[in-house]
Amino acid sequence: MSSTTTFKHPILDLKVPVPSDIDIATEAIPMPVSVIAQHCGINEDEIDFYGKYKAKVHLSLLQRMKDHPNGKYVVVTGINPTPLGEGKSTTTIGLCQALGAHLNRPVFSCVRQPSQGPTFGIKGGAAGGGYSQVIPMEEFNLHLTGDIHAITAANNLLAAAIDARILHEGTQSDDALFRRLCPPAKDGSRSFAPVMLRRLAKLGITETDPAKLTPEQVSRFARLDFDVSTITWNRVLDTNDRFLRGITVGQGKEEEKFTRKTNFDISVASEIMAVLALATDLGDMRERLGRMVVAASKAGEPITADDLGVGGALTVLMKDAIMPTLMQTLEGTPVLVHAGPFANIAHGNSSIIADRIALKLAGANGFVVTEAGFGADIGAEKFFDIKCRASGLRPDCAVIVATIRALKMHGGGPKVTAGTPLDRAYTDENLDLLSKGMANLEHHIVNLKKFGVPVVVAVNRFTTDSDNEIKMVVERSKAAGAQDAVMCDHWAKGGSGAVELGNAVIDACEKVQPQFKYLYELEQSIKAKIETIAREIYGADGVEYLPEAEKKIELYTRLGFDKLPICMAKTHLSLSHDPERKGVPKGFVLPIRDVRASIGAGFIYPLVGTMATIPGLPTRPCFYEIDIDVNTGRVIGLS
Amino acid sequence: MSSTTTFKHPILDLKVPVPSDIDIATEAIPMPVSVIAQHCGINEDEIDFYGKYKAKVHLSLLQRMKDHPNGKYVVVTGINPTPLGEGKSTTTIGLCQALGAHLNRPVFSCVRQPSQGPTFGIKGGAAGGGYSQVIPMEEFNLHLTGDIHAITAANNLLAAAIDARILHEGTQSDDALFRRLCPPAKDGSRSFAPVMLRRLAKLGITETDPAKLTPEQVSRFARLDFDVSTITWNRVLDTNDRFLRGITVGQGKEEEKFTRKTNFDISVASEIMAVLALATDLGDMRERLGRMVVAASKAGEPITADDLGVGGALTVLMKDAIMPTLMQTLEGTPVLVHAGPFANIAHGNSSIIADRIALKLAGANGFVVTEAGFGADIGAEKFFDIKCRASGLRPDCAVIVATIRALKMHGGGPKVTAGTPLDRAYTDENLDLLSKGMANLEHHIVNLKKFGVPVVVAVNRFTTDSDNEIKMVVERSKAAGAQDAVMCDHWAKGGSGAVELGNAVIDACEKVQPQFKYLYELEQSIKAKIETIAREIYGADGVEYLPEAEKKIELYTRLGFDKLPICMAKTHLSLSHDPERKGVPKGFVLPIRDVRASIGAGFIYPLVGTMATIPGLPTRPCFYEIDIDVNTGRVIGLS
Repeated sequence: MSSTTTFKHPILDLKVPVPSDIDIATEAIPMPVSVIAQHCGINEDEIDFYGKYKAKVHLSLLQRMKDHPNGKYVVVTGINPTPLGEGKSTTTIGLCQALGAHLNRPVFSCVRQPSQGPTFGIKGGAAGGGYSQVIPMEEFNLHLTGDIHAITAANNLLAAAIDARILHEGTQSDDALFRRLCPPAKDGSRSFAPVMLRRLAKLGITETDPAKLTPEQVSRFARLDFDVSTITWNRVLDTNDRFLRGITVGQGKEEEKFTRKTNFDISVASEIMAVLALATDLGDMRERLGRMVVAASKAGEPITADDLGVGGALTVLMKDAIMPTLMQTLEGTPVLVHAGPFANIAHGNSSIIADRIALKLAGANGFVVTEAGFGADIGAEKFFDIKCRASGLRPDCAVIVATIRALKMHGGGPKVTAGTPLDRAYTDENLDLLSKGMANLEHHIVNLKKFGVPVVVAVNRFTTDSDNEIKMVVERSKAAGAQDAVMCDHWAKGGSGAVELGNAVIDACEKVQPQFKYLYELEQSIKAKIETIAREIYGADGVEYLPEAEKKIELYTRLGFDKLPICMAKTHLSLSHDPERKGVPKGFVLPIRDVRASIGAGFIYPLVGTMATIPGLPTRPCFYEIDIDVNTGRVIGLS
Repeated sequence: MSSTTTFKHPILDLKVPVPSDIDIATEAIPMPVSVIAQHCGINEDEIDFYGKYKAKVHLSLLQRMKDHPNGKYVVVTGINPTPLGEGKSTTTIGLCQALGAHLNRPVFSCVRQPSQGPTFGIKGGAAGGGYSQVIPMEEFNLHLTGDIHAITAANNLLAAAIDARILHEGTQSDDALFRRLCPPAKDGSRSFAPVMLRRLAKLGITETDPAKLTPEQVSRFARLDFDVSTITWNRVLDTNDRFLRGITVGQGKEEEKFTRKTNFDISVASEIMAVLALATDLGDMRERLGRMVVAASKAGEPITADDLGVGGALTVLMKDAIMPTLMQTLEGTPVLVHAGPFANIAHGNSSIIADRIALKLAGANGFVVTEAGFGADIGAEKFFDIKCRASGLRPDCAVIVATIRALKMHGGGPKVTAGTPLDRAYTDENLDLLSKGMANLEHHIVNLKKFGVPVVVAVNRFTTDSDNEIKMVVERSKAAGAQDAVMCDHWAKGGSGAVELGNAVIDACEKVQPQFKYLYELEQSIKAKIETIAREIYGADGVEYLPEAEKKIELYTRLGFDKLPICMAKTHLSLSHDPERKGVPKGFVLPIRDVRASIGAGFIYPLVGTMATIPGLPTRPCFYEIDIDVNTGRVIGLS
């Protein structure tokens, strides 16, 4: 990261009480992203601007900087949260503002792109909060640079290809199908499209002249022969549309012999999002997209995107999405926004590519802070065992975000529900509840140390927290093995409120020699891997498998998919499978309802309970407040 | 348009035979769009770059240049085409390359953004062809700057809001609904969101304190009371997915009491696309989006987007899409790409905003060439009667594109089908067929002169056309009243092949005083307007209305929607409603099956026959050829 003499971090004009997120965000005047890019050391030919405050960074930078040293790699995770969230994103941003604008270290925040659906539904935006935000927040929360739209388009092209193929196979002879798939050119010659050679190779057919295939080979090549009951590929929309949770398609006149039940997921639940997050370069993304499995044939063989001839087209649709988007925090530190897979059915971490670019740009003296979704039992475990394994990168430090509020909930405090006022147990000092709830945090500290990285606890301060409460969390965290534990107040004070956290992270990264290791080895069986996670991380006594899960484990083992890492689809509200069980649940057996596979992304995901994969709209969605000032063009009501 | 000394139009290296579109496009080295913008006279603060070759132009330019003179306004239209298309887009681009790079006039092409669906389906891209193309063609044909994705998102947010509202109204009392719609703030006070004041005004309720509404007012306000059978708002995707032509939604467990049949359209068929194309500024777009009618209540009253509280959010989703995208032709002339509504259920013309910006930038000495979809009976009539009426702009000239091939088809030539070789009637000289087919072109010339604009015929030359054939078209066109008629060869020669056309257009614009007039007046009844179009333009003997059409005409008249212009949804393959009737059909009565309304866009659209609103995928879609070279990042196989 080069430092230019002209670059100055903006000075925050901190107000008390802290204004609303949108008011802080819209009052801030962002720097042109060209200034941010130059300050980061990104060359002019390595960047594409999307307006004045967003830019895509080319992957060619990795080639140019391949011999440069990496920065320190910090993951931010959390305890099991209340439904209100405990400020992981805000802490990620605040920590970076501290490191960059106050401690003078090169720093990057690597964060996930939020789904647009919840922006208009219940949750609102996801750009951090208070004086620790990514700006411009309306750009961050809306289309950004179109990556999720590209995923929607690619996902749905594949879905359309599946149903169209079933129809064409259902209405044509082998010969007719083959003739259409390999039509004669003007001179009468016929040839296979390059993507078809992949299918031929998979079928073990070495002949590459269409005219010379045997009738049996023609049939095997042309007929994917879908077992319709096995289709796992859904359509997606980036909209909170609950009426698409269960639908019947194909009720048009020409398709009605092929109607089937299916559903839409929200776009960020698409396997293509997980592929984007885990791909290491363009070639790797091409291969992952092509090998995504969408169903099984009637003979039980997996059918892939490349079998459908669409892997290349999906890559073309994703060719810009593979570049991370550069933005900035309120204090002018750089942010890379890239990918945002679900944290249950996927691994809930931003992209490997963004982290790699950021690590090079940060350099030996710098830091890359990336956030893992959900609590540490889900997001951090997947960060280590899935993301780091795919990237080969090794983390230097883990930050666990905790709040007094959530810890009290784990200690037995009253139920916390969005939209209803907090009980006084949460706003008045209550060391007893807090003390009991500390067990949850202590469990996560012990868990993360199993991966061999130093742990720093960040107590994200709320205005109602007492000094005694903070003190208890700090002391007990250290006693449980945290390298350090500090209070931070970046929501109210921006980076200046997280300087102590910044110093703790610097010390943990620079003074501790990490001994990073994975929790399990890929060579273990699917069941052995699941049981390791369940016992070691969740504290379960064991695992039970429902018949559907047993069947799938057998199937995936037979198909050779059993050497993939495991991506548990479990609630984030408890260490167990039951969201109501707070603290550190004991004496439970983890039930595995079903097991699914994302072969392109590269993981097996056991389902612990039922996951909603497309949210709905409440009676009064956020959109009621959202409008535009037609005179100034300013967005209003976004939160 | 300022001219800088450094700007030079690229010199085309014309090859014979003409290479494929993609080969020409990828061999061309586009100029940075910043250079194009500067040459056009766009200020730095009036542009947002999206990568190096695309940029969005701010509407503030219109304010800055409001006192500048407009350029000449030229619309390109065509005869009724064969299913292969007759080169309207290619002629639009070629004409501009001639005017700009060879005749040294300031010039803009204003074209529609193509749907991404067909790019991967049957049709391929839409960036022109041969040596008359918009580049980079893969940017043009893929996501561009995200406008269609924004339309998809906005359209589907509204769709989700409809079904969610029906569910919430179906499961809650008036009081509960109202309490949730206007919840108390932390201090217990309640207020209406600004968008709710629109609904109150519409209901004639002057009270604006939620606490003071009478129970009857509460019920009227909170209950939109959908008549589910009247819902006209569909979901959309920019994908060729035939299985979404007929679907059932709401089959999830919590929604199953509210299942209903519906369908998806392709995104460009969304009314929001038509709104984008017809909006004159941001405020106008906000109002149009808010007044879109999605259904009727059980009492028969229209329910709008603003009744659902979502008009502002839709505008926020569309806030970047309202800016046209600047690109370039192969010869470096500027192109504004903006909007692309269907030409049957919508008006098939690019945006008013892009035309207005281009006219200011072109200035008194310059030209703006815009293309109208389908044949002149559809696209040009709607250009004059819908688009020009909404913009207040007056055209200076109309260009009718004709091909010898299509004219021979109209003269009785064998059926022309995509994917099968052309009959020799089309490739050998055949003056007899051509002479008979001229009637179609002559009819369009006479039609367009009814609007009071000079008509120039452009004979888009194919390599197989004979000089005698060209001569016949030129002479007969002039005899029929065309201001001029010229052969053009821009596909093979770029702008140099359309210089004669360029001069003809310059003369028509500068030497003829246009006497522009609309075909009908808005004050006429719906039926009178339909009959004027049917008789005057299509040559019908009259119009017959099916019962559903009669019912709707009555309804729209009662609701006061009868003063809107008419947007006929008719085939483009014939002047009549029957695509098989070529030439100039006589003795037919135009059947109106149904009548629908796009109140936000601002037109009534009678349905003449059945329109497919989402295409399907063939057995071997274009996507089989499409891939990316992972080493260079170059897109291959796009056409």
